[in-house]
Amino acid sequence: MPTPPVVEIMTIGDELLYGQVIDTNSAFMGQELGKLGLRVRQITSVSDFADEIVAALDLARERANVVLMTGGLGPTKDDLTKHVLARYFGAELVMHEPTLRHVEGIFARYNRPMLEVNRQQAMVPSNCTVLHNALGTAPGMWFEDRGTIFVSMPGVPFEMKGLMKDEVLPRLQQHFQTPPIEHVVVQTVGLGESYLAEKIADWESALPSNIKLAYLPSLGGVRLRLSGYADGQPDLRGRMEGLLPALRERIGEVIFAVGEVPLEQAVGQLLLERGLTVGTAESCTGGYVAYRLSSVPGSSRYFQGSVVAYSNDVKVKELGVQQTTLDQHGAVSEATVREMAEGLRQRLGVDVAIATSGIAGPDGGTPTKPVGTICIAYADKHQTVSRQFSFDRGRQLNVEYTSTAVLNLLRLSLPVA
Amino acid sequence: MPTPPVVEIMTIGDELLYGQVIDTNSAFMGQELGKLGLRVRQITSVSDFADEIVAALDLARERANVVLMTGGLGPTKDDLTKHVLARYFGAELVMHEPTLRHVEGIFARYNRPMLEVNRQQAMVPSNCTVLHNALGTAPGMWFEDRGTIFVSMPGVPFEMKGLMKDEVLPRLQQHFQTPPIEHVVVQTVGLGESYLAEKIADWESALPSNIKLAYLPSLGGVRLRLSGYADGQPDLRGRMEGLLPALRERIGEVIFAVGEVPLEQAVGQLLLERGLTVGTAESCTGGYVAYRLSSVPGSSRYFQGSVVAYSNDVKVKELGVQQTTLDQHGAVSEATVREMAEGLRQRLGVDVAIATSGIAGPDGGTPTKPVGTICIAYADKHQTVSRQFSFDRGRQLNVEYTSTAVLNLLRLSLPVA
Repeated sequence: MPTPPVVEIMTIGDELLYGQVIDTNSAFMGQELGKLGLRVRQITSVSDFADEIVAALDLARERANVVLMTGGLGPTKDDLTKHVLARYFGAELVMHEPTLRHVEGIFARYNRPMLEVNRQQAMVPSNCTVLHNALGTAPGMWFEDRGTIFVSMPGVPFEMKGLMKDEVLPRLQQHFQTPPIEHVVVQTVGLGESYLAEKIADWESALPSNIKLAYLPSLGGVRLRLSGYADGQPDLRGRMEGLLPALRERIGEVIFAVGEVPLEQAVGQLLLERGLTVGTAESCTGGYVAYRLSSVPGSSRYFQGSVVAYSNDVKVKELGVQQTTLDQHGAVSEATVREMAEGLRQRLGVDVAIATSGIAGPDGGTPTKPVGTICIAYADKHQTVSRQFSFDRGRQLNVEYTSTAVLNLLRLSLPVA
Repeated sequence: MPTPPVVEIMTIGDELLYGQVIDTNSAFMGQELGKLGLRVRQITSVSDFADEIVAALDLARERANVVLMTGGLGPTKDDLTKHVLARYFGAELVMHEPTLRHVEGIFARYNRPMLEVNRQQAMVPSNCTVLHNALGTAPGMWFEDRGTIFVSMPGVPFEMKGLMKDEVLPRLQQHFQTPPIEHVVVQTVGLGESYLAEKIADWESALPSNIKLAYLPSLGGVRLRLSGYADGQPDLRGRMEGLLPALRERIGEVIFAVGEVPLEQAVGQLLLERGLTVGTAESCTGGYVAYRLSSVPGSSRYFQGSVVAYSNDVKVKELGVQQTTLDQHGAVSEATVREMAEGLRQRLGVDVAIATSGIAGPDGGTPTKPVGTICIAYADKHQTVSRQFSFDRGRQLNVEYTSTAVLNLLRLSLPVA
């Protein structure tokens, strides 16, 4: 058995293997386990077949101290995890009264009749510890068998997260008492991975042996993740943060935040600090920039609103873009997007405005303005700034990259005081 | 070795185990393999350690005919897949000239200097077939070893997809020549999984043995996936589609599309068919409904634009909401959201308008209007319809569910002719 304690995550469900559903549960569990100092050694996704689940369990228990399973606890015919586990651990299924009352309460609250299949969800293997699922009908189950901990949770992300936070993580913390792995994440935007690596090569080589650096490319940027393992010295996190000034000397201009702070939140903090309000005027991004800004809790303190001017008519009527500008330069031009930003600023009375106009694709390209031609602009009372880009990642990613580019333009252009 | 041919997907990278990145690659690969009739038996995620990769390869080759690997082919220190594979298959690394020229071309095109680490990316194990990666610097690799096919691809989704489509899938199709698994997906919205199951229980029981039904809950709805396996009879897909009329008799009102058609695309098709234009007036959804509508290629034919009225000031000035309405009923009320929809309709001159106003959370709730209180409205020239809901899934999901609810209200309220 390996030490320090390792976890295997097992996700059960044909839909994952068919690719019909994206596995977000593993990422959540991996992050939360890391905070407790529990390392995920492997993630295994298997189908709803009893034999596959059993084979995977047999292998997992040889690799890990803890096996966390999700999936297969629903009320329909393909949900058989519980039955497989009862047989695997040699137990009968028995009715768990508190769970039954909880399930009855859920249906009563929604004024819906409870079906027999829902009642069956309150049956549990006689030798498990029941983990109360406050957010759904299927209880979690905790087994300890020949030195390995096995946990079964529903696959519904919302319910799994509740069970992890309320039941599983506290019990694992109690059981293992391991020092957490400290993570410090530095968010950068605008510079590619290999150039970043080159600029910080000397800093990276000088890192202590218990602190590892990983490059995590994300849409439009790179996250630099420092992972620190306990070395018996105090204040690991403080020492890791003490490495950052030297990093900033090398790449400070592309760092927009430290921690799990998305670009829109970092931008929001700048706007708040400087007492500025913002609005957006969008064409090709279709409201996505507004959505990103408003996704930050408390953004109503600085985000006033937007005009999504998808048609040229709306650009003219609602943003005051000159028809002559559209005729001479076209909707996708720095001239037009500058007028969109300036017009929005005046229209909504906001301090700063950002605007987008482009051809996200797949259609709409011309020889002079191919698919992926994007224009962005920023306007405040002192200046208007604009840029043109060429993206080639398909409609959805082109919109994503455009939103990052215009939020970064906002970040870099904001007046300092 | 199992028959029919099965695939194991292996994703390599600590970032997946730490939960810093969500695995979207497996879902894409699973879907594409399914179309070729290749079943994914297991998905395994392992760390960047050579020993872990080798152990996983040894196990995978016993379970599958094909092992598809992604990850670990980048230019930085933690990218070691290629070196592990060279050693595993007993080969030297040699320079692949066509790849080197391709990599040089990429850097020339962006007018950036090429680093030695990028040059190293053109080295490949001497016994692999190089798969040209048109979208990046790291080539894919194809090995055939003792009856098992091993493929290594970059983990960057954009690049992996290009390699799969251009190189891997065609070669696998050629190699295996298996009849595809046919999938028919029925999209429903507004009814929970167990109620759906009850309404269609008799239809489900009568399905032929080679056609399986799975319930895939998604945000605000349930996808019903029929999977058909070749049975030697012709036109499997036609027979599966022939099952749908009986399904519609039972749940027709909640079916909005057949196929991988998101709700916004189904709604867009209705608008196109009826020659209607649409706009949105949004508060709590912050532009997300507009973004969903505009994410459909060709949506400019019916989607004109939106006003995101995040502050009450903008609701009054840009949408014509009455100050007295705001004072008497508050921003989050059916009265206000009805005026938002009607005001937007007149303002932009669109045929139909939808509006949202609510408290997505986590802050902003009051005893009479707690977090999750959401109002939506639809307006056309004949009528205005509104609804109030209570969602309790946290800010991001509350916005997601609200956007689905208002798009569904649009779908159900549109004039028929």
